[in-house]
Amino acid sequence: MNGKKIIIIGAGLSGSLLAIYLAKRGIETEVYEARGDMRKAKVAAGRSINLALSDRGIAALREVGMDEYMLREAVPMRGRMVHATDGTTKFLPYSGRQGEYINSISRAGLNVALINEAEKYSGVRFYFDCKCIDFDCQTGEAIFENGEKLKGETLIATDGAGSAVRNGMLHGGVPRFNFSQSWLEHGYKELHIPPGEKGGFLMEKTALHIWARRSFMMIALANFDGSFTCTLFLAHTGENSFEQLKDEKSLMEFFENNFADAIPLMPTLTEDFFANPIGNLGTIKCFPWNADGKALLLGDSAHAVVPFYGQGMNASFEDCRILNQLLEQFSGDWAKIFDEFTQIRKPNTDAIAEMAEENFYEMRDSVADSVFVRKRELETKLEQAFPDYFSKYSMVTFREDLPYAVAKEKGNAQDKLLMEICACVENVDEINLNEVLEKVNSLFKK
Amino acid sequence: MNGKKIIIIGAGLSGSLLAIYLAKRGIETEVYEARGDMRKAKVAAGRSINLALSDRGIAALREVGMDEYMLREAVPMRGRMVHATDGTTKFLPYSGRQGEYINSISRAGLNVALINEAEKYSGVRFYFDCKCIDFDCQTGEAIFENGEKLKGETLIATDGAGSAVRNGMLHGGVPRFNFSQSWLEHGYKELHIPPGEKGGFLMEKTALHIWARRSFMMIALANFDGSFTCTLFLAHTGENSFEQLKDEKSLMEFFENNFADAIPLMPTLTEDFFANPIGNLGTIKCFPWNADGKALLLGDSAHAVVPFYGQGMNASFEDCRILNQLLEQFSGDWAKIFDEFTQIRKPNTDAIAEMAEENFYEMRDSVADSVFVRKRELETKLEQAFPDYFSKYSMVTFREDLPYAVAKEKGNAQDKLLMEICACVENVDEINLNEVLEKVNSLFKK
Repeated sequence: MNGKKIIIIGAGLSGSLLAIYLAKRGIETEVYEARGDMRKAKVAAGRSINLALSDRGIAALREVGMDEYMLREAVPMRGRMVHATDGTTKFLPYSGRQGEYINSISRAGLNVALINEAEKYSGVRFYFDCKCIDFDCQTGEAIFENGEKLKGETLIATDGAGSAVRNGMLHGGVPRFNFSQSWLEHGYKELHIPPGEKGGFLMEKTALHIWARRSFMMIALANFDGSFTCTLFLAHTGENSFEQLKDEKSLMEFFENNFADAIPLMPTLTEDFFANPIGNLGTIKCFPWNADGKALLLGDSAHAVVPFYGQGMNASFEDCRILNQLLEQFSGDWAKIFDEFTQIRKPNTDAIAEMAEENFYEMRDSVADSVFVRKRELETKLEQAFPDYFSKYSMVTFREDLPYAVAKEKGNAQDKLLMEICACVENVDEINLNEVLEKVNSLFKK
Repeated sequence: MNGKKIIIIGAGLSGSLLAIYLAKRGIETEVYEARGDMRKAKVAAGRSINLALSDRGIAALREVGMDEYMLREAVPMRGRMVHATDGTTKFLPYSGRQGEYINSISRAGLNVALINEAEKYSGVRFYFDCKCIDFDCQTGEAIFENGEKLKGETLIATDGAGSAVRNGMLHGGVPRFNFSQSWLEHGYKELHIPPGEKGGFLMEKTALHIWARRSFMMIALANFDGSFTCTLFLAHTGENSFEQLKDEKSLMEFFENNFADAIPLMPTLTEDFFANPIGNLGTIKCFPWNADGKALLLGDSAHAVVPFYGQGMNASFEDCRILNQLLEQFSGDWAKIFDEFTQIRKPNTDAIAEMAEENFYEMRDSVADSVFVRKRELETKLEQAFPDYFSKYSMVTFREDLPYAVAKEKGNAQDKLLMEICACVENVDEINLNEVLEKVNSLFKK
């Protein structure tokens, strides 16, 4: 290959979007993907995992002109629909403002669209079934399963949470490489709610459905075809765990006790449950993200997060947008670009990693907590009343201009205050909104 | 090999001591060491690194009858000798009690003695120059550099901070393996103070010498032969860093400004400085420590710590002592033994890891801080007056009956109280010791 080309390892969501960004700058790129071309693989309709695309991700798609195209295939979700054990539901909007919602989108659909878009540029080539297994930080060569070694002008690793390039950096390639991987005791399993008889949705489609049961939970996101993908989050072992659901009887008993209202919507529950794998939920952090100017980790390879803030993909797309700004600024000085990128992004991806872990407990426990429900109601009222008020969730999700670390710091201070206020009242209507806003504003004046 | 034997990977301090423990139980053991036989390698006299052996380590040596033998070759250190920039010194005892001191001992000497002792048992065999490079968690086989694969009844990995067995567990061998490695910005370099003309010590030999300079420090421990091994802890890069000391001129200027009183004692300073490597200082944590009953991580492979509490070796020796108790209790049920071992030891090695990182800042900054110096004086007085009073340092160092986690919790509460007391007085003599003891005791009654 031409030594002036950039090598991207991994043609997932980040790698494909990054290829478009580089192509638009006239940078020639070769993208190597371990798996086969997903456009040729048969994915059962509606069974692909869906993801929540929100403003940070949209902003990154917008810069390459892909936002409107993608949103056309997405299902807006305006809030959480909380399912109580008795089957009653309560809708908690994500924001008090009209235009602020998140979007359920098919991972496979989005990925295919990005690969197709990237391939429109003559400077981009994708190579599938090419598994990178290591990276040599001294020579800058990517090492592939078939023994081939490749070296470009530089390399960007978008090869995900199990990154082979990162392993090359970890095992002696980068001196004093800080690394951590930590796993939740909970795993997840995907289940399925098919479309209704005439292709309609069997539940409210514009909500993220949550069955919060404190030590475990299930969620469901609508797919474009009328189905929902449910995800059951449950401990691997112990009380109320995957380990315990070993046959149809124990499974159905568990569902009847906890998700009774969902059972009629899930005709293939048993088959799905025993056929689908249990996924793990982990957080990966590392530092530095680069081997001088020879390689950069981007997306999950640098900062895999748990899915509970719906920000994994959005954070990775934001990576692409920020990297593009630095390419503009420091054109060709890869060591400088990669160092700056790490300095800018690391505090922010650390912040979203921590918020995502916290949100697991919030979704699981607090959605079922009356003070928390009142606090969400109060925040909705504040957002309706004051255009400049943003909840922590809104800052993270709808304010692509605010770095995650700022959203976290402001959001935590604000949350603490609002929870205190809501702990002292029975009804949110008793609260004077102007007084609350004043208190919130005074938090940030200090 | 006989499938009923136990394989130990690594003939360092922990592996050699563990082999003795197993041999005493009549368990046959094969110990595989990556390096050559250190008894045949020539180690320059007095140049071997020394370590601080204290009560937890001594307790573990005592159970195999090696304590007295080893202490005969150790140099007792009764406290810290703090060297000010102007060359004046102040002695801060480790304890107010007579029998409580730590021991400077040669790492190589101790290691050789342990290997020699282990080899006295017919059931123990050492194999040198046998580098284990991986571990297969499915088959239980250790994989060696020459391609050989070995499997015993079970395997215990004492192959240190860079453990190949742990890497086998990390890379897919153990599902949801939690792992972190984090590095200090500071590195270290060993330097040398030779014995005096008639073989005497050029500084007080029964103290650990410290030149605390806030952003960096040097320490010195006496060797049995009259020399001292100095260790300079300095940032890798930036202000006052190894990077800046690039020639004799910058080195000597740095020493004259900071360690002037040491220069006359270090005739080979320049040669040593530019010949000796810069070491890294890291903390490694992981969980679980075992692959079912097939393998166990023990010592640094499970929990490498920075050296600032002088507890790395002591913690690893304590590992051996605790494992031996579990072998007694659950003889042969390796999965049970390894699970229990991890449950018991993990909270304690996490505690010493955190205390060791904190103690870096204490040694570097606080030894030069007047409130801290007063607090140490107060603690010495308390220990002299009350046989049941133990400082945090004493609990960690001299109370092998107290788990590290307990020492940390109690010690932190006590430290906070004593620092508050010492911040309000000019002179420790003003303080009523009985009142302080009452306050301390009331902390732990809650």
